[in-house]
Amino acid sequence: MNALAEKVSKMLVSKEAHPQMTEIEVKGCVIGGKQLVIIAGPCAIETEELLKETAFKVRGAGAGMLRGGAFKPRTSPYSFQGLGVVGLETLAKIGESMNMPVITEIMDSEDIPIVAEHADILQVGARNMHNFSLLKKLGRIDKPVMLKRGMSATIEEWLLAAEYILAGGNGQVILCERGIRSAERWTRNTLDLSAAALAKELTHLPVIVDPSHGTGVRSLVAPMAKAAIAAGTDGLIIEVHPHPEKALSDGEQSLTPKQFSLLMRELEPVANAMGRRVR
Amino acid sequence: MNALAEKVSKMLVSKEAHPQMTEIEVKGCVIGGKQLVIIAGPCAIETEELLKETAFKVRGAGAGMLRGGAFKPRTSPYSFQGLGVVGLETLAKIGESMNMPVITEIMDSEDIPIVAEHADILQVGARNMHNFSLLKKLGRIDKPVMLKRGMSATIEEWLLAAEYILAGGNGQVILCERGIRSAERWTRNTLDLSAAALAKELTHLPVIVDPSHGTGVRSLVAPMAKAAIAAGTDGLIIEVHPHPEKALSDGEQSLTPKQFSLLMRELEPVANAMGRRVR
Amino acid sequence: MNALAEKVSKMLVSKEAHPQMTEIEVKGCVIGGKQLVIIAGPCAIETEELLKETAFKVRGAGAGMLRGGAFKPRTSPYSFQGLGVVGLETLAKIGESMNMPVITEIMDSEDIPIVAEHADILQVGARNMHNFSLLKKLGRIDKPVMLKRGMSATIEEWLLAAEYILAGGNGQVILCERGIRSAERWTRNTLDLSAAALAKELTHLPVIVDPSHGTGVRSLVAPMAKAAIAAGTDGLIIEVHPHPEKALSDGEQSLTPKQFSLLMRELEPVANAMGRRVR
Amino acid sequence: MNALAEKVSKMLVSKEAHPQMTEIEVKGCVIGGKQLVIIAGPCAIETEELLKETAFKVRGAGAGMLRGGAFKPRTSPYSFQGLGVVGLETLAKIGESMNMPVITEIMDSEDIPIVAEHADILQVGARNMHNFSLLKKLGRIDKPVMLKRGMSATIEEWLLAAEYILAGGNGQVILCERGIRSAERWTRNTLDLSAAALAKELTHLPVIVDPSHGTGVRSLVAPMAKAAIAAGTDGLIIEVHPHPEKALSDGEQSLTPKQFSLLMRELEPVANAMGRRVR
Repeated sequence: MNALAEKVSKMLVSKEAHPQMTEIEVKGCVIGGKQLVIIAGPCAIETEELLKETAFKVRGAGAGMLRGGAFKPRTSPYSFQGLGVVGLETLAKIGESMNMPVITEIMDSEDIPIVAEHADILQVGARNMHNFSLLKKLGRIDKPVMLKRGMSATIEEWLLAAEYILAGGNGQVILCERGIRSAERWTRNTLDLSAAALAKELTHLPVIVDPSHGTGVRSLVAPMAKAAIAAGTDGLIIEVHPHPEKALSDGEQSLTPKQFSLLMRELEPVANAMGRRVR
Repeated sequence: MNALAEKVSKMLVSKEAHPQMTEIEVKGCVIGGKQLVIIAGPCAIETEELLKETAFKVRGAGAGMLRGGAFKPRTSPYSFQGLGVVGLETLAKIGESMNMPVITEIMDSEDIPIVAEHADILQVGARNMHNFSLLKKLGRIDKPVMLKRGMSATIEEWLLAAEYILAGGNGQVILCERGIRSAERWTRNTLDLSAAALAKELTHLPVIVDPSHGTGVRSLVAPMAKAAIAAGTDGLIIEVHPHPEKALSDGEQSLTPKQFSLLMRELEPVANAMGRRVR
Repeated sequence: MNALAEKVSKMLVSKEAHPQMTEIEVKGCVIGGKQLVIIAGPCAIETEELLKETAFKVRGAGAGMLRGGAFKPRTSPYSFQGLGVVGLETLAKIGESMNMPVITEIMDSEDIPIVAEHADILQVGARNMHNFSLLKKLGRIDKPVMLKRGMSATIEEWLLAAEYILAGGNGQVILCERGIRSAERWTRNTLDLSAAALAKELTHLPVIVDPSHGTGVRSLVAPMAKAAIAAGTDGLIIEVHPHPEKALSDGEQSLTPKQFSLLMRELEPVANAMGRRVR
Repeated sequence: MNALAEKVSKMLVSKEAHPQMTEIEVKGCVIGGKQLVIIAGPCAIETEELLKETAFKVRGAGAGMLRGGAFKPRTSPYSFQGLGVVGLETLAKIGESMNMPVITEIMDSEDIPIVAEHADILQVGARNMHNFSLLKKLGRIDKPVMLKRGMSATIEEWLLAAEYILAGGNGQVILCERGIRSAERWTRNTLDLSAAALAKELTHLPVIVDPSHGTGVRSLVAPMAKAAIAAGTDGLIIEVHPHPEKALSDGEQSLTPKQFSLLMRELEPVANAMGRRVR
């Protein structure tokens, strides 16, 4: 631990470089503050109606931010690839009408201008954590970036990927743990909360957790969401879909709005026990 | 999930086979009840004085059970292998004088009688989770067994290892998640709390978590201990040593009695938030 | 590499401790010599007739040793557990009548005398590589031991497991690489030939490879068998069953005697290219 | 296996879709033919003199193609990032003067025109295997692409990444196995030759192996190179540097020109045993 703490201490992400914990504010929603940020929404943006319904319901349940994918990184070229720019426009429109900041994934550095125009936070997915060209370009914009940990990335590599963005001049980075690959087959990924806790210990950046991708199993979202908060992280990103069984992607891990609403109530006492608020 | 739930439903470990959650009582200490069980003590039993001091302090801080290894599974034949029978006797003596039930590891089926004579719970370590000969023999005794998950065992293999003990006639099995191997180098293991949560969901057995071996990093024991409780598990097993820097094994991950005492106070609000008690 | 080579250099398994490469002879079959050892036979001993048929055919194809499991480490307590002592007797009988040395797995230290009585080599399976009690007892017998690498064991742990046997006084150890766990789902394990090559580089012990368990896929046995020889190892252990589709275990990875015979012919030029002989 | 073979059979990479094995010719050098392709050169292009010296020597030893990185994907933003366009120009110049086709890595889709102008084959590194935007754009060019397997990618994901390129209209894809992440610490990666063998079995694409990155250990390059050929692959990509101890990246795994020359002679009999030629 001493060796690694020393290694990190020389980086821009470290508390040594920036003793005050970073708080990132987007449209009145603060990430890294006393109040936890709960980001909810569908995996992919499918239709305006569905997104509107989801946004309305998750906002009602207390979510502070809306998520939705327009560019989708799919393993197969024959799977639904997202609505692209139309999806971005829909997301921005719904976010504005609901008064919720929005976050969406950026896959191609060419798309940075258009995504930055429509989204409040740009998300780098696990598959692009090692896309250094993209990271360098995100270091030159003035928008917050949420950096997911790569699926087999070590904590060191994850922090160094964040360092690419900070070294470029963009200090608004949010780290997101979303599970790593293991030999386990009953969960989609192995959610590594110790990585999230270690990132909180060593860096000044906000850290949030994705229990939806992190487990891939609907019934595990609630226990892992509570565990993430108890581990000291700053928020959650959760997939919610009105009809998970019909979702174009990741239906197996999506909560219904009702399940999400129930979860929000269950999170409250745990957050309070940690001296935090859910809303 | 449906396929795996169905698979488990045919096993003796399942809620289908045993709808009531199993509670295991040893000398007044209940595992699997409303009160969480906190097991604490040194990795290895070194001297009677050290064990006594540790026991006195962890009991004072609220620990319900004492741990200590007499037979130690060490990677190198040249490392300290534990005190053996002398260690067992010391553990039993201190446990009795402190009025704390004791748990220790069983490595060799030949030693079952002597370990069962001195310990209240027999622990099967991660390295022996797939030692089916040992599991079969533990299925024939009338003592509780704590079964640690193997370091690369899938959840299915872990539950099937427990099934070996239940199928032999011994229903007093406690599951223990202690981290799995991954490519991560900053932690010793990757603590998989989703496995613990899934074991709680699918089986009637008590599930406890080992954040000491599960992370191998002292500063991560507290956040992971809280996370484990928030994930719904029934207790913790934590390494405590009065002088971690001089410990004969695993000093890097041991808490001092003072750190343990502080942790116990931090666990309380999280436990309460989950409707549980720490003491 | 320098650090690890130095670490190994202090061990009994190292070339520094024993500059001459170890050759182990059993009934005229030499392991670690110019001639590669090819061990073949069924995963489990099922009936005397089947074993006899298999032995007859693999011997005809050039196999030097017969394998067959009597005590089977099965993930589920409800799977076929092997014929036990009856299986051992059958194996010894067929081995003798065919004039082939035999190898079988030892799972329980209690069974060492009976297994040592019937088998020429005792195999420690991957699941017991970290069963240190068993290793210590095998260090005190005068029979060769084949030590499989654990499914998530590092090379260092594997060599240290061998060290347990050597430190006990038994220098007749054969290392066997049989694949490690990974996230890959199209193969049962990931055969790590670099581990085998490194073991050959650093130790004086014979190293053989198990392409059957190492891949779990019949069509991959031949390419991996050839690759293992080209990597410089001393032999192969291959599952052969007259009717793989009816095998009580591991049918998916078993070759038919005909496929085995074809493989033996394909191995010949590769062995010759390496300055070795197959028979 | 049957399920996966069926899955692959519906893909453009499959032998069902393209029964004839694909051969890719660049400047007289055929990949996928009877003659193995041996690609050699430094990890990174450092100076024209060094590259010229290396090219001259590896060509003399029998290498058919020259490698060298101009854009380097480095874990830390503070490590040497490559010479960029200057490096590309140097590579093209030396390749032309030595009459060797050249291969180099493409990291940013923006750079496709300039890289395609200077290189004969564009390499997608392990860190970008899941950069679907890049893959889609490479599907629209008329240059061969060598696709390295991601560090924790399954074989299925690797083939689907290739499918992205083929689906875009570019059939000139070479697969390259370069090792996957595991818990092993004595090697940098775990070279998975069974993945390479399976790719040969299921697809019509040429498959080559990178024993340099695949092991990260100089002494393992030779045994793994031989093993790769015996496993039936179509060639090798090997790091060679005149002064590995001074290399700006990956010195630990680079061969000297002399070691490379020795290796080429050792490969010859293995290649011949497989009915292939090294030169």
